[in-house]
Amino acid sequence: MSYKDGFHVAVMGATGAVGQQIIKQLEKRNFPIRKLTLLSSARSAGKEVLFKNEVITVKEAVPESFEGVDIALFSAGGSISEKFAPEAVKRGAIVIDNTSAFRMNPEVPLVVPEVNEDALHGHNGIIANPNCSTIQMVAALQPIREAYGLNKVVVSTYQAVSGAGAAAINELNKQTNAIINKEEVEPAILPVSSLDKHYQIAFNVIPQIDKFTENGYTYEEMKMINETKKIMGMPELKVAATCVRLPVETGHSESVYIEIGTNKVNVSDIKHVLQNAPGVTLQDEPESQVYPMPAMAVGKDDVFVGRIRKDLDEETGFHMWIVSDNLLKGAALNTIQIAESLIKLGLVSSKVEA
Amino acid sequence: MSYKDGFHVAVMGATGAVGQQIIKQLEKRNFPIRKLTLLSSARSAGKEVLFKNEVITVKEAVPESFEGVDIALFSAGGSISEKFAPEAVKRGAIVIDNTSAFRMNPEVPLVVPEVNEDALHGHNGIIANPNCSTIQMVAALQPIREAYGLNKVVVSTYQAVSGAGAAAINELNKQTNAIINKEEVEPAILPVSSLDKHYQIAFNVIPQIDKFTENGYTYEEMKMINETKKIMGMPELKVAATCVRLPVETGHSESVYIEIGTNKVNVSDIKHVLQNAPGVTLQDEPESQVYPMPAMAVGKDDVFVGRIRKDLDEETGFHMWIVSDNLLKGAALNTIQIAESLIKLGLVSSKVEA
Repeated sequence: MSYKDGFHVAVMGATGAVGQQIIKQLEKRNFPIRKLTLLSSARSAGKEVLFKNEVITVKEAVPESFEGVDIALFSAGGSISEKFAPEAVKRGAIVIDNTSAFRMNPEVPLVVPEVNEDALHGHNGIIANPNCSTIQMVAALQPIREAYGLNKVVVSTYQAVSGAGAAAINELNKQTNAIINKEEVEPAILPVSSLDKHYQIAFNVIPQIDKFTENGYTYEEMKMINETKKIMGMPELKVAATCVRLPVETGHSESVYIEIGTNKVNVSDIKHVLQNAPGVTLQDEPESQVYPMPAMAVGKDDVFVGRIRKDLDEETGFHMWIVSDNLLKGAALNTIQIAESLIKLGLVSSKVEA
Repeated sequence: MSYKDGFHVAVMGATGAVGQQIIKQLEKRNFPIRKLTLLSSARSAGKEVLFKNEVITVKEAVPESFEGVDIALFSAGGSISEKFAPEAVKRGAIVIDNTSAFRMNPEVPLVVPEVNEDALHGHNGIIANPNCSTIQMVAALQPIREAYGLNKVVVSTYQAVSGAGAAAINELNKQTNAIINKEEVEPAILPVSSLDKHYQIAFNVIPQIDKFTENGYTYEEMKMINETKKIMGMPELKVAATCVRLPVETGHSESVYIEIGTNKVNVSDIKHVLQNAPGVTLQDEPESQVYPMPAMAVGKDDVFVGRIRKDLDEETGFHMWIVSDNLLKGAALNTIQIAESLIKLGLVSSKVEA
């Protein structure tokens, strides 16, 4: 093996919600690490993080932080990635970026290993991790597409607040407490902290995630549309998305309508395909009330699929309900899986042996 | 006017969540009432209700309770309607029934006054009030259909717990409190109190409303599908529904995808149609973050529509977000509006003058 001493891994954004999950996943999956460098903004630098019983101090990121790094995992926001990812690549690191900064760049592979691991071969130093809502959907749709073709996708999401970071989780908890105690709380974070208007999320539903683009869709919706086409390599696929925020802490749910390439298929065929799909767990027994729910998906690696029904009026139409932990498969886990795929495919080498 | 002294109105299920709203609406809308009879099961009989500063005692319903009643408003569950509605009709009352007992009976008009008031002419004593989720959707779709035709509807709902009654509201509040205080609570009501399995609703999402039918859809989903076709008088309309329960007390939201009868229409045409539609309020200004949300729709009469977008890949496709107070337009208000339509059309007369 080319990595017998392991890799020098850097985590950029080590103190954030996703960064913390990345560090946990590196430990849990026993990722081959020779050295772990934890980086952040100046504000969070100096914090201490426990990794395999060793205390590591988070350092402020500067371009030189990436000297000697083999794999750099970024989750500190798009502008940080734009600034530092090229610096890391310049110094020989492979960057796996959790932000949307490079996702639609044609030079950058956008990867869910179960779907398009092969796209890693074309990388130029940066690999993008897709949007959380996109990852869980394409993981469920790809096996169906391979078996029966896919023409159209209409998704409505039910997204947890942790997708908007730790401040949004805090806001949900504070608001819920206040409403129960009949106190006033001024919303300050959701739907988008940098925008003017903020709305109550506790006991409410907000049909806005990220800012609006000029066509009336939000950026989150456009990410789902464009990233799905790119990951599946299907520019002709019809995709539409409506993205909605709920008072749930973690776990994204999706109501997905698809039209496949044949009218010769029934629900049990689709279930059979998903039963054998990598990274997917079928939870679909209506007669015993078995279906996926976010409260049961939290902390689990898989994408859970249930409520599979044939459309009653459209011969090629099917409906399904897809749930996954947005911080795991939707972010940290998929990032680590990309790194594992790079190793498996021999696309990354450890500088200690170079 | 044939009702100058007003009507003798009976409310069956007067102590329930919807019954209480019906009584409030009768007062608020100054419905022409000569006498108000409040009925319930033996268990709730004896309770006192204030109506126009007068205390009315709720009585246990027996067939004779409907002697002399002109209009009977039922919201006490399907089996109660099946038992007592024919008794009321036999005694000359017109029944407006809030349950699903008679909705798909071809002899029974299923009415949303803004959509199909004319269907009242064919009544045989019983008129059915549609399912809450159906009402708000058809109120928004009918004006679009009239202007541009309608071929297909795919809806995913975001439904509040109050649709499952007062016990479900209580369960949401108790569970929320317990989770915040890190205590245990055993779910006992949702998704369906009479079924074996109950799931946490606080900070969770349950993709089941009502029991499952044999085809894998729930009864709630089949209601939306069948009732939409019946109310709109379009058996050929393609309709599909996925119904989902959320930790929201009141206010149903719906993500609706439609395909209309022309590709010559843009978003501003659809907005223009909805701006002039009865019972509908357009809330659609993405640039200033204006869109409908349940927390803002509670207590309001209208159906709120926003997030209207043209599908980017389907020439005739549009998306929208529809929100309404499920206890008002979704139940009590539509019931009273049906009664008002009956009066307006001269289809009910007061027995005092007969």
